[in-house]
Amino acid sequence: VKVALLSGGVGGARLARGFSALDRVDLTVVVNVGDDERVYGLAVSPDLDTVVYTMAGMEGGQGWGRFEDTFDVMKHLSVYGADTTFRLGDADLATNLYRTTLLDQGVPLSEITRRIAATWNLNATILPATDDQLRTEVETKDGWLSFQEYFVFRKHVDEVVGIRFAGAETSRPGPKVVEAIDAADLVVIAPSNPPLSIWPILNIAGITGALAEAKRVVAVSPLVGGKALKGPADRVLASLGFSPGNQGVAEAYGDLLDVIVVHHHDDPPEGLTVRRTDTLMPDRRASIRLARFLVE
Amino acid sequence: VKVALLSGGVGGARLARGFSALDRVDLTVVVNVGDDERVYGLAVSPDLDTVVYTMAGMEGGQGWGRFEDTFDVMKHLSVYGADTTFRLGDADLATNLYRTTLLDQGVPLSEITRRIAATWNLNATILPATDDQLRTEVETKDGWLSFQEYFVFRKHVDEVVGIRFAGAETSRPGPKVVEAIDAADLVVIAPSNPPLSIWPILNIAGITGALAEAKRVVAVSPLVGGKALKGPADRVLASLGFSPGNQGVAEAYGDLLDVIVVHHHDDPPEGLTVRRTDTLMPDRRASIRLARFLVE
Repeated sequence: VKVALLSGGVGGARLARGFSALDRVDLTVVVNVGDDERVYGLAVSPDLDTVVYTMAGMEGGQGWGRFEDTFDVMKHLSVYGADTTFRLGDADLATNLYRTTLLDQGVPLSEITRRIAATWNLNATILPATDDQLRTEVETKDGWLSFQEYFVFRKHVDEVVGIRFAGAETSRPGPKVVEAIDAADLVVIAPSNPPLSIWPILNIAGITGALAEAKRVVAVSPLVGGKALKGPADRVLASLGFSPGNQGVAEAYGDLLDVIVVHHHDDPPEGLTVRRTDTLMPDRRASIRLARFLVE
Repeated sequence: VKVALLSGGVGGARLARGFSALDRVDLTVVVNVGDDERVYGLAVSPDLDTVVYTMAGMEGGQGWGRFEDTFDVMKHLSVYGADTTFRLGDADLATNLYRTTLLDQGVPLSEITRRIAATWNLNATILPATDDQLRTEVETKDGWLSFQEYFVFRKHVDEVVGIRFAGAETSRPGPKVVEAIDAADLVVIAPSNPPLSIWPILNIAGITGALAEAKRVVAVSPLVGGKALKGPADRVLASLGFSPGNQGVAEAYGDLLDVIVVHHHDDPPEGLTVRRTDTLMPDRRASIRLARFLVE
């Protein structure tokens, strides 16, 4: 079964981990790059790294970074009085130095990601949604902020009243992205933040077109009991004017979906085929279970 | 006594360490930035860092980096198969992350250097020769190379047949550089590589002019027994067509010098006032001794 998974960070990464454990699944993960930014001069790609680290079984416990990483460089950096809010562990720094070195040499992000995934022998194809410059920006009462300014530096406490994707108009789908969606028996939208993590992917014209033609598109709701498990998805949907709960998730995806998967007894959205299961993925076993449910 | 020291890396750093230990010396160090480059996406300033680390008593033993630094990030980086020839220790990385963060925010290198020096409570003013983009490039049989390509990646084994300073024409002296030279009772050219480390400073028009008006300019020869203690100064002088030994050093500085200081019994250059002393600075005590000799 060919599966194309559209993914943000943690939720998508955990579902990718599940799919990649299934023998009969040929998995391509199309990952959001709207969160990418230069931090400390380094080209960070938080969602790509979370997907890779999680699939390699070495993700950090807080939803970012690497397992049991050390923070010596951050410690030395704080001696200078630098802002170390954006924490990069020593091993995680190496990934970012590697990516930045190659980007500055003109190597496309897709090729860099391929090399990183190959280093960890991942059983899937990991694709950035685009090799072009697409950046998510959010509007708050203090004006427009870059994604990392909003998410990490201001800890996503601001109310989001607008969202835009700088560079989306001129961004082309990354290599193999459209082919993967075209070939997929099943396109899955991961339980990621719809406006912040999935919209950046959907705003690339070539991808939107491919999804409209896709055989079957299934979204897994990121809400459980109407709340986001992690991050501000419920608050962002509400402040952007969507309905509460899974109804809002369905609205955020418009007419893209064939099916939505919601957690056991949660309210179903109207006008869509709904499937119910345990959507929580606290560990690898749960990820595999949910992935198997989606394939079946 | 106001001293302005023109400095490259190790030799200049050690002499700066000596001057800064003398109570009656008010020291300004004008440091070469021609070696600055982006490596791993980071803005490295090898000579500035060597001067700061050495004055703070925490320089690495090999002429670069910090004392007893660890290399965890480089170790993780090599897992990706990356080229880690340009070794940056974990603490040294922090300095480079700090500089890059601020440069990308538009803070001038001079202000960044001031903050770094303030962190370590240095008893001197450390000034980059310019805040502008001035880059030393060397010509070899394989064509023009960036300085770090020549020096670090190719380990300075190539014969240097030409040298140029990209951006020198439009580079202005950094803040306070001309004032420091104008006010100096003594301008000292450190025992650094004349073409590679000092010429980049001399090629900034505003600095050349200030030096021509300086009260007294003394160079310390970087050669001992006709050989460079470290690095390729003797070979570079020869391949650029200068005479062997101290005569070549004097030629490289043209009519800029009033006095040249050479090691004990080494051959003196013609046509210049020559002073003789022990120019070796293996430790702090020797640095202080040489600095005191220069002031007296």
